[in-house]
Amino acid sequence: MKIVRTIQEWRSIRRSFEQQTVGFVPTMGYLHDGHISLIKEVQQHADITVLSIFVNPLQFGQNEDYGSYPRDEEKDTNMAQLAGVDYVFIPDVKEMYPAPTRTKVHIEGITEQLCGRSRPGHFDGVATVVAKLFNIIQPDYACFGQKDAQQAAVIHQLITDLNIPVELIICPTIREEDGLARSSRNIYLDSEQRQHATILYEALRDGFKEVEAGERKTETVKANMFKKINSVSMAHIDYVDILSYPSLGGLSQLQGKILMAVAVRFGATRLIDNFIIEVNDQEVTLCFGI
Amino acid sequence: MKIVRTIQEWRSIRRSFEQQTVGFVPTMGYLHDGHISLIKEVQQHADITVLSIFVNPLQFGQNEDYGSYPRDEEKDTNMAQLAGVDYVFIPDVKEMYPAPTRTKVHIEGITEQLCGRSRPGHFDGVATVVAKLFNIIQPDYACFGQKDAQQAAVIHQLITDLNIPVELIICPTIREEDGLARSSRNIYLDSEQRQHATILYEALRDGFKEVEAGERKTETVKANMFKKINSVSMAHIDYVDILSYPSLGGLSQLQGKILMAVAVRFGATRLIDNFIIEVNDQEVTLCFGI
Repeated sequence: MKIVRTIQEWRSIRRSFEQQTVGFVPTMGYLHDGHISLIKEVQQHADITVLSIFVNPLQFGQNEDYGSYPRDEEKDTNMAQLAGVDYVFIPDVKEMYPAPTRTKVHIEGITEQLCGRSRPGHFDGVATVVAKLFNIIQPDYACFGQKDAQQAAVIHQLITDLNIPVELIICPTIREEDGLARSSRNIYLDSEQRQHATILYEALRDGFKEVEAGERKTETVKANMFKKINSVSMAHIDYVDILSYPSLGGLSQLQGKILMAVAVRFGATRLIDNFIIEVNDQEVTLCFGI
Repeated sequence: MKIVRTIQEWRSIRRSFEQQTVGFVPTMGYLHDGHISLIKEVQQHADITVLSIFVNPLQFGQNEDYGSYPRDEEKDTNMAQLAGVDYVFIPDVKEMYPAPTRTKVHIEGITEQLCGRSRPGHFDGVATVVAKLFNIIQPDYACFGQKDAQQAAVIHQLITDLNIPVELIICPTIREEDGLARSSRNIYLDSEQRQHATILYEALRDGFKEVEAGERKTETVKANMFKKINSVSMAHIDYVDILSYPSLGGLSQLQGKILMAVAVRFGATRLIDNFIIEVNDQEVTLCFGI
């Protein structure tokens, strides 16, 4: 496995691939099993696997955790090597932004709800850095997790609208045994918070079961999920929402492909989780992808 | 020469090029000698020449000339063939925008002055379609004219900020014998307007001479250029401006690389022109490019 720190070095490596396809997993590092599952998936499609590690300042708000976002390059590169990654691209901030970027990629409509509401500018920062990384890595395949379902919808829209020549692969969320979704931010939780953090998963599971049992009113299911999370006094709800997926439009009745999404703060730590479900007249199924 | 109308067809042709480099000239058609000079220039760099013809609705304002913009596909493809173009990409609007784009590429700072002021949203439309075309054509070189100097600065910023793997080539403005810059919109002019349209060139030339003679106050040079154009009663000034280039910042004193730019309406027809000059203590020279 080779570590690459500059765009110029990567470009010269990229030119040496002739018929081989490139699979790409962009990350902010502090790898966990969720990231490893993305690596394993992209390896099924591509000849060469590239992982990037870059904590992108552009997608953090002024009062967010950019400075304290967990970083551990040595552990990350060891995990990447064990997972069979061929190249790890680790640019520093000056390499990615030698001058403040004047170019912003904005996705209308699907960036204003959910995390976009509490993190204004976040998805512009995501779309812009992903556009940059696609232009640098020039992958044939790129793999993202469903854990960040709104992000997946944004990247899907970016690729579609800008005709980016990359195939998007979305992978299911990886969970701890008690249901908590894997996240680099889970290490912020103290033991009591960690114990109660399963409430996100439990609320989603209950919401899914309610729809499975026949409930079709969005407001009813949302209200019950909200009540469930609120039963944990240290859990502060940012949002509980149910929207069409991936268009993220409002719904009065549950029908079609649907995103059930929650964001909850435990102290300073903000956790997100979601289920994607398919509601037909006959059945209700859990699914993933766009 | 082959005409290609769909993205899918082009992608399969593009994959067949192995070591050959691709040079790209994006246009809105109605080709003139200015476009031909771009084709000739890109042929000096690349093995394969691709010309696109697409009148991009996204870069026209509601009251602008999208509907009436001159089109002549047969003449254009004949001229392209004579010029030695290998592929002409002529997508229709549905091919480029199968659904309204939710993704907009915005360049801050250098899109607000000059044409950006009188054509709000224009450069977002340009940046977005050029990002799309770059992702579709995947050129190694792309050639634009200095006639659209602000556009060239915008594309330069787009390529830099988004790390687009293309080399930008800017070509000098091609003029009629009397100095009028070649433009597809010149055919809108009636004979009297055409005769007076040289005032753009004359004002720029006089402004340049004034700087050459030692004047360094921006406002003085601008005022004289303004007065010159205003001497033609049928000429309605949109702007006369002098800015740093390519950063397009304001200047009180003329020093360094400078854009002198004018936009003037003759009836419903809006013409633009510019000089790029380099001002040092010792000398003042005409130049082009970024």
